[in-house]
Amino acid sequence: MAAAIDFYFDFSSPYGYLASHKIEALAARHGRTVNWRPMLLGVAMKVTGGRPLPELPLKGDYARRDFLRSAKFHGIQLRIPAVFPISTVPPVRAFYWLQGKDPRNAVELAKALYRAYFVDGLDISRPENVIQVGERLGLNGAELGAALNDPEVKDRTRAEVEGAIAKGVFGSPYVVVDGEPFWGVDRFEQIERWLATGPF
Amino acid sequence: MAAAIDFYFDFSSPYGYLASHKIEALAARHGRTVNWRPMLLGVAMKVTGGRPLPELPLKGDYARRDFLRSAKFHGIQLRIPAVFPISTVPPVRAFYWLQGKDPRNAVELAKALYRAYFVDGLDISRPENVIQVGERLGLNGAELGAALNDPEVKDRTRAEVEGAIAKGVFGSPYVVVDGEPFWGVDRFEQIERWLATGPF
Repeated sequence: MAAAIDFYFDFSSPYGYLASHKIEALAARHGRTVNWRPMLLGVAMKVTGGRPLPELPLKGDYARRDFLRSAKFHGIQLRIPAVFPISTVPPVRAFYWLQGKDPRNAVELAKALYRAYFVDGLDISRPENVIQVGERLGLNGAELGAALNDPEVKDRTRAEVEGAIAKGVFGSPYVVVDGEPFWGVDRFEQIERWLATGPF
Repeated sequence: MAAAIDFYFDFSSPYGYLASHKIEALAARHGRTVNWRPMLLGVAMKVTGGRPLPELPLKGDYARRDFLRSAKFHGIQLRIPAVFPISTVPPVRAFYWLQGKDPRNAVELAKALYRAYFVDGLDISRPENVIQVGERLGLNGAELGAALNDPEVKDRTRAEVEGAIAKGVFGSPYVVVDGEPFWGVDRFEQIERWLATGPF
């Protein structure tokens, strides 16, 4: 059986959000499954010396325009949240906590968190909002709330984020197919060809 | 008649080089012409606080891989030059000098300079190499050499580069269609749709 595709993303990344709508179908067309791997762009930026796109002179204005236009291009609903960008430690912890218990539901939680942020404008940097999203999916809110401060969940999250950076992940989305890295939802056509015909 | 498309690029930019192979056909499919407008990424980076991709930790390694893979994806010959990236003041001056006399030939010179750098590995930051490329196209080498130090050509070049930055151009390629900016050869599909169906 062909290896799963690694899909790294940051919950505050509009391009990661767009990619989250496309990655499963892309993989399925080529008989692959997807490992959803939320990471923290802010930690990666300490290595690359980068700064959030929206803060950069000239690039920031362009980026806001491109987020919205790219969403329309792909036919995906997107609003730039009032609080943007954000640090997303709580959603990442929620994801890895649930993944340890129920991997398939963890993917549904990731999609719901993205939607809450980029469609409903809910500030998912706040634990109470992450809990609210989880409860709507049928998770136990008290259990989820406790998980967000559980040392084991924190360690797992840290290990995942550091592991991503050790593998060279510096952006969102960042997809790895059989060892080959692809950065950006605008590389999905290259991924498609790579999966269809092999390395080029 | 529909307005021309503005095509901004840096002669040291691999993605600009790839775009240079595609922009004319893209425009022609929609009854448009192209204004070729070389600029200097190094000057723009002083505004955005950016640094050349190849110098960035993690991103640099990825970028080199992506340059080559993207070239193969588009079916365009590309080698990463031994001296890379470079400052490209002489080729930009050569372009604007020739454009003042013979706009169509200036586009041919731009293509020849790109090819000299990204296929033959010629360091086009050196005036003598720019002159060599011009001579191969039938230009008078002595005249071109003199133009590279002509105060009028220098002023024109400075005005073009500053004008580009004033319009928000911060990357290469950077295409403006009826006031709408598109950054990157990976936005050419969005340009195509914009030209075909109008704003989205």
